[in-house]
Parts: sequence; structure tokens; C-alpha cells
Amino acid sequence: MNKTAAIIGGGVIGGGWAARFLLNGWDVRVFDPDPEAERKIGEVLDNARRSLPGLGNVALPAEGTLSFHDTVAEAVKGAEWVQESVPERLDLKQKVYAELQAHVASDAVIGSSTSGFKPSELQDGRDVPGQIVVTHPFNPVYLLPLIELVTTPANPAGVVDRAKEIISSLGMYPLHVKKEIDAHIADRFLEAVWREALWLVKDGIATTEEIDEAIRMGFGIRWAQMGLFETYRVAGGEAGMKHFMAQFGPALKWPWTKLMDVPEFTDELVDLIAGQSDAQSGHLSIRELERARDDNLVGMMRALGANNWGAGALQNAHDKAREGEAGLASTIEEVADLSQPILTQTRVVPLDWTDYNGHMTESRYLDAFAQSTDRLMLIIGCTPEYIASGGSYFTAETHIRHIDEVHAGHPIQVKTRVIMGAGKKMHVWHEMFEGDRLLATGEHMLLHVDLETRRSAPPAPHIEANLVKIAEAHAGLPAPEGLGRAIGAPR
Amino acid sequence: MNKTAAIIGGGVIGGGWAARFLLNGWDVRVFDPDPEAERKIGEVLDNARRSLPGLGNVALPAEGTLSFHDTVAEAVKGAEWVQESVPERLDLKQKVYAELQAHVASDAVIGSSTSGFKPSELQDGRDVPGQIVVTHPFNPVYLLPLIELVTTPANPAGVVDRAKEIISSLGMYPLHVKKEIDAHIADRFLEAVWREALWLVKDGIATTEEIDEAIRMGFGIRWAQMGLFETYRVAGGEAGMKHFMAQFGPALKWPWTKLMDVPEFTDELVDLIAGQSDAQSGHLSIRELERARDDNLVGMMRALGANNWGAGALQNAHDKAREGEAGLASTIEEVADLSQPILTQTRVVPLDWTDYNGHMTESRYLDAFAQSTDRLMLIIGCTPEYIASGGSYFTAETHIRHIDEVHAGHPIQVKTRVIMGAGKKMHVWHEMFEGDRLLATGEHMLLHVDLETRRSAPPAPHIEANLVKIAEAHAGLPAPEGLGRAIGAPR
Repeated sequence: MNKTAAIIGGGVIGGGWAARFLLNGWDVRVFDPDPEAERKIGEVLDNARRSLPGLGNVALPAEGTLSFHDTVAEAVKGAEWVQESVPERLDLKQKVYAELQAHVASDAVIGSSTSGFKPSELQDGRDVPGQIVVTHPFNPVYLLPLIELVTTPANPAGVVDRAKEIISSLGMYPLHVKKEIDAHIADRFLEAVWREALWLVKDGIATTEEIDEAIRMGFGIRWAQMGLFETYRVAGGEAGMKHFMAQFGPALKWPWTKLMDVPEFTDELVDLIAGQSDAQSGHLSIRELERARDDNLVGMMRALGANNWGAGALQNAHDKAREGEAGLASTIEEVADLSQPILTQTRVVPLDWTDYNGHMTESRYLDAFAQSTDRLMLIIGCTPEYIASGGSYFTAETHIRHIDEVHAGHPIQVKTRVIMGAGKKMHVWHEMFEGDRLLATGEHMLLHVDLETRRSAPPAPHIEANLVKIAEAHAGLPAPEGLGRAIGAPR
Repeated sequence: MNKTAAIIGGGVIGGGWAARFLLNGWDVRVFDPDPEAERKIGEVLDNARRSLPGLGNVALPAEGTLSFHDTVAEAVKGAEWVQESVPERLDLKQKVYAELQAHVASDAVIGSSTSGFKPSELQDGRDVPGQIVVTHPFNPVYLLPLIELVTTPANPAGVVDRAKEIISSLGMYPLHVKKEIDAHIADRFLEAVWREALWLVKDGIATTEEIDEAIRMGFGIRWAQMGLFETYRVAGGEAGMKHFMAQFGPALKWPWTKLMDVPEFTDELVDLIAGQSDAQSGHLSIRELERARDDNLVGMMRALGANNWGAGALQNAHDKAREGEAGLASTIEEVADLSQPILTQTRVVPLDWTDYNGHMTESRYLDAFAQSTDRLMLIIGCTPEYIASGGSYFTAETHIRHIDEVHAGHPIQVKTRVIMGAGKKMHVWHEMFEGDRLLATGEHMLLHVDLETRRSAPPAPHIEANLVKIAEAHAGLPAPEGLGRAIGAPR
């Protein structure tokens, strides 16, 4: 039988919680007096269903059942977890707790999404203070893993453990904040940056867009993978965290921010931080940390590139500007010698194309060949505009032979022959090289399709004409070794 | 002929600049009195060569020539760009500028890597102040694109334009800061967060590790793609930026950080920010921004997962914990019915596996099949421990047939048959389904290899025995349709 969560207060945050529980197989019972609550939660769920189940590599359990209820009493029936996400007014929250504690099981955990209130403020005056904790999430709740779990001495160890266990079972990260403080931890940073940003905008130093670029083109990407201290540990290099702090320490006296209420930079504080940093990251050398950082940065920037966004969009533009100089044609006229295989790719094996040993992984050979097919399509006139007008080529069949290995950081090139191009069919042959060394071959049969009907259909006449022209020019080349080969066939 | 850059001051920052120029085809001339400079720059270059050339999808130009010089005069010879990265002491920097301006071409750009000094402080007292600008980079300089280009009215428009053009040609992002200020823009945020973090550690609220988790499991990933204001615009939802600010405004009066020197939250400031935010992001609806954000978050978290790092490592652990319940075996004993095709994958198509239309892209079919092969290897005992001991299977040949389409967010399963497993060979057949709908087949021939010699070699006896056992159990199944098919062969 499914477990049950009660969501008190919908909206973006409550809806995000509902999605986390539902998509992890819990039944979810919602109370929200807003007549729009069902629609609003439905919108969050649409986004969540689109993104969360594919975040991992293993299917989530079958979705639980979502229901809406008219009273808190009914919503919390049978709930093992109650998540409160009502507006940030302490009197309102305390009223809600009084009501729900009259009906909820005494062993249920009640988590509050509050950003600002301390758990002791929520527990104050309650019958069972020990079951109330702060579980502060981050938007979008259905994707971001962080939950600040803030507790007080009134919370029995069993409640804290169960809270951690349930949060973890939802694929989230319970960060246990043992000493309560206004705004917990993360929002203190957000608030500090927000205050500084308000000054910058107010003083006319930067616009909101410039500030966002200053973040996402630089330290934002660093922080996505190492946070603040581990990043600085790496920056400090072999000289270590103490050395880094000695360099940065004096800035505390300088007007490097308008927020000047700074702690004193004592030896004691330096030792405390250096010691904690050793405990956190000391199992990895600076060189190992640097390489992990670079692997992460490359992987994330390339992920952004796939969405043509932020730092990834910048890189795409840089690539585009380099194509001609790198010898890549974009039209049939730009192909220097049609009688020879066409250069359809020239690149260096990226870090995210390789396994932990630095060898290019199997599926990236097809990634490379598919990109070469895309380039050939561009050359014959199957451009983004043409595709937007409703026609494209789909791959029906692929045959890859892995002939030799290649490593991250090594240059590869793909040369492409058209074996046959007539009517709806396009039969291509890719060869991947590092220098003169043949690494792999890719043989592909594509069909031109009508993107409306999703069925095969003839291409536009100019595209077929270009394809035929290349096929005829390539017909003079000797047949490639391995063409038409089946798996298991003798060589 | 290559262009020439002079690097004054090596180290991590100067070395990063040297790498950016070199790997983008510039000759680089270094002056650094440190006898260790060559070694230190060499280490940065090793990291840069490993990561930067594969960041994009198009090869960079041939690397330029790196040389080391004993005097500033010699280093700046023929330089179009001079990058100064000496220690952060104004007197030292001014001395360096005086010396290099005696030798550098008057139309060269001199960029300073300073984090703290304003360009007017560097220009003060110089013969040609107009060629000096701040070009403040972020570590690792060879990967992070942000350059804060800070100028003064003393800089002619031509110098500013040339600086932007050259920075862009290196694949970097010149953020032009027109109004100089201590610490420019990004470091003001870093400094604010650093100050707040020092308080949290000093007050015993959180350790360095807890602070890093609070960043990288939450807002750090958000900031890597949208920064501060666009993120909040999305959080505000359809009600808009003004609504968001009305909600957040009161927090400025609350002790949500120890940094209390806050600007007054006037209507004027709210209007200024809302207007700038509209100009920045108003071309996209909130729903479009939400989906772009989610695409980016999923892509980046999955990129981190590939490195088993941060939020991605958390997701991997969640996947691992779910395997059994999802019906995935990890040993031959766990396979429920050996006589049937083995379930080797059950997942939902991730957002980063699809094209802009939401269809699963070609190469991800092989990605899925390769992961199913990995699972089969695990089942027969080719475990990470076995692989670490020196043996593994490499794919020699692959044949994929694309039969039907599938979309992001849809569940897929892969079932696997062993066609033949004996000696060094493993011949497998994967079928990918959405429910009962066959999406694709993958036929693969693998060879067991000795990872030392990289040549084929027999597997350990228990592995061969398991493989034979499965092949024999599967021999009773009818031959799959399409087995042994070659491309272009009639059906």
C-alpha cells in the first residue's frame, strides 16, 4: 500500500512537494482553500512529470493518487508526512498547526516550508512540538535536491531520523541544520547577494541582465558543483586553504561590498575554516579536485550548450564562427572537392564523451556520426528553415564498427561518403579518424519524412538533386571496406 | 601569421590566460621572474589542453608558440594584447605599467586581471592611459567565459571595441562594466557571500562542508544557468517581478543575514528592477522560462551524475537504491526467468536525451543499449571489481534499427537476449519498448579484452560460464526478426 503525504497549502512550493511525493509513489492529499489550487498544482505537476522521472537512470515507482480535500482534518487522514507551505505569517502557521495536530497521527512528521521562521517559533505553544520540523525546499522543488532540515532539542532523535529517511527516499538531500537561525543557511546567502544586487542596480553600476551574466558566466557554474569553500580550496592550490585565506582576508576591510558588518579575521577563525576544509576535501589532492572541477564544468557547459543557453550558447556561437576556418562546409558550393569524402566533423574528444579511463564511450561514436549526418543534411540544403517547413531525414538503420580507441583531448575528424541518394533514401558512410588512424566506421540508412504525418515522403527537388550530385561524384571512389556488412558475418 | 599576446605574471591566473590565447592560436610570450613560472604555467596548460579544446564541437586552430622571456621589454615585443596578472599591489602594478609602456606598441590593449583595483587607479600617471583596461577573469580562466571589462572615459571607443572583439574571439564573454567600482561586479557577490559564510562558521551554525552542500544542492545549480534576477522572475510566476519583490522586500528589514547595510526598498527601485527584468527576459513567457530552467537543471545534474559528483551523485545513489524494486537484476541469481529476455533497463526518457521537438535523439538509442549491455555484463559477473582487475568487454560492432519514435518523459524498457556467448565473444540482441510498442533493436558483437594489452583475451571462467548459461537458456527462443541483417539488404 502506498504511503500518504498531506500537503497543506498548494502554490508553487506546495505543488512542488506534491509532485515529489506523487512521482515517488506516495498518495498525496491536498488542502488549500484557494479555488485555483487544483489548476495551479496541475501546472506544477505538468512540469514535474516532464522533468523529474527522467532525471535518473532507473524508473520511479508507479505514481500515487492525488486528491483534494475541503478540510485540514480530512487531508491529514492517514498521513505519515504533512508538509505545510502556507503564507509566511507566523500567526497563520500557528493556527494551521493547532488545527492539524487535532487530527494528525502523533507519529507523523510535520515539515514546514518556511524560509524565515525558526522551528522553535513553530513549535511554541503546540501540543506535540516534537513532531514539527522545518523542511525548507528550493524552487523547483521537484528538481532541486536541497532540503534544509532544521530541528530543535524538542525534536526526538526518532523524528529527525525519520525525516531524513523520508526526504532521502524522495531523492532529496536533507541538510541537517542543528542550530536554528533566521533564514536557515542558504537563504542567508541569497539575501546577502540580493542586498548587494539591489545596491548595484540602485547605484546604476549594472542592470539585472548584466548581474545575471556576471553570475552565470562565472561563479554560478563553479558553485553548481563545489560550492564556496571547496572552490576556494582549489583556487588556493597546493599552498592550501590557509594561504588562500591569507590572500583574501584583507578584502574584509575593503569596500568590496556595501555589506560591511564583517566578522574579525582572527587566527582562530582561519584555523577553524582550514580544519573544516581538510575534513571536507582533504581526501582529494588539489590536482584531483582541479580535474573533477574541470570535468564538471565541461559537462555542465556542454549540457547548457545542448539547450543553447547561457555559457553553452556562447560556446555554440564560438563554434559557429570557427566552422569555415576549420574546413567545414555549410552548403554544397562550399565543398572544395565533391569527388572526395566530405569533411563533416573536426573536433577534439570532449571530457563528457569519455569514460572514467578517458576512452571515448561507445554511444558517443554514434553521437559524432549523427552530427556528421546533420552536417551533410545542411550541405544538401536540409537546413533548419527547411526542417521548420516540415521535411527532414530520419535514421532507419545504423551499423557501427569500432576499429581503434581514442582518448579525451585528442583530435578527431569524420569524412563522409554518400553511397546512394535517390527518392526518399539516403545511404551514407562515415569514417572517423585521428590523423590517419581509422577509429570507426558508420553506415546509415536514412529516410526523408514528412514531419506532419511522420511517414516517409520525397524531399524537395533541390535537396534530392544535391544528394544525387554528391552520390554520383562519390560513385567513382572504391567501395569502402566493410560496406553492407552484417554482424557476425565473416570478414 | 599568428597574433601575439604577452603575459606579465604567470601563476594560476596568468597561466589560464596563456592557455586561452595559445589554444586559440595565438603565440604567447611570458614574463615572470618566478623561477618556477615555466613549471607552474605548464601545469595549468596540462589542465587546459585536457578540457578546453573539447568544450566546443569544432576544432580550435593549431596551438600557438609559447616562449618565456627575461624582461618585460622582450616579452611585449610584437604583442597586440598584454595581460597583467601580477600580485594585487597598486605600486607594483603601476611600476609594471610604466616599464611595459616604454616598449609596447601604442595600439596594443593592456588588460589587468585585478580583482580589486579600478581602471582609473591603473591609468593614473601613465603616458598612454587609454590603452589600459581591466579584464578580470575567473578561475579556471581556460574554461569560465566571464571577463569583466572595466573601462573609464580615458579609454577611446576603439580600444574598448578591440578589447571586446579579442575577448570574444577567445570564446569568452566580455561583460562591459561602464561605471567603475571597487571589486567590479561578480566579486562583490563573492565577497558578500564570503562574509556571510565567515559568520556562519564563526557562530558555529554550519561547517564549510554544510555550506558547500547548501549551495551546490540548491541555488548554485539555478545560478549556473539564469543568475539571480531571471531565477526570481520565474519564481514570481505569472504575477511578475513586482509581485516577487513585494513578497521578498520585507526581508530586507529582517535579520536574514548579518550584512545589514541595505538600500531602501522604494517604489522607484522596484520599478527600475521590474523594467530591467522585462527588458532582459520579457521575450519569454514564465512557462517558457520554467521549461528552459528545467531543461538546464536536468542537463546539468545529469552531467554531474556522469562524474558521480554533487547533485548527480545523489541521484545516482537514489537510482541504485531503486534498482531491485524496479525489477533490475545485478547478478545471474537475481534474474527471475533465465529462459526469457532479461530486463536490462527501465527508465523514463530524460530531457537531455531528446531534440528540441522532444523526440529521443539517435545517439541516445545507443546510449540506452550500451547501458543495457553494461547491466548484462554486471549480471554475468563482469563487475566494476572484475574490470578493475584488468578484464572487460569492448563493443566491436553495432547494428541499430529505429522502428518507432519515443518522447521525453515516456517510460522505456530494454529486454536483452544473448545470441552467442563463448570464448572471447558476446553477441547480444536488445529490444527497446514503450509498453508493447517496439521502438528499436540493437545487435552488438563484443569481445572480451585484456585492459593491459588492449587485445582480445578470454574472460574469467565464471564469466564465460554465466554467459554460456544464458545463451543456452535463450537458445530456445525463436530467432529475433532482423537478426544478422545488413544495411540495404531487402527485408
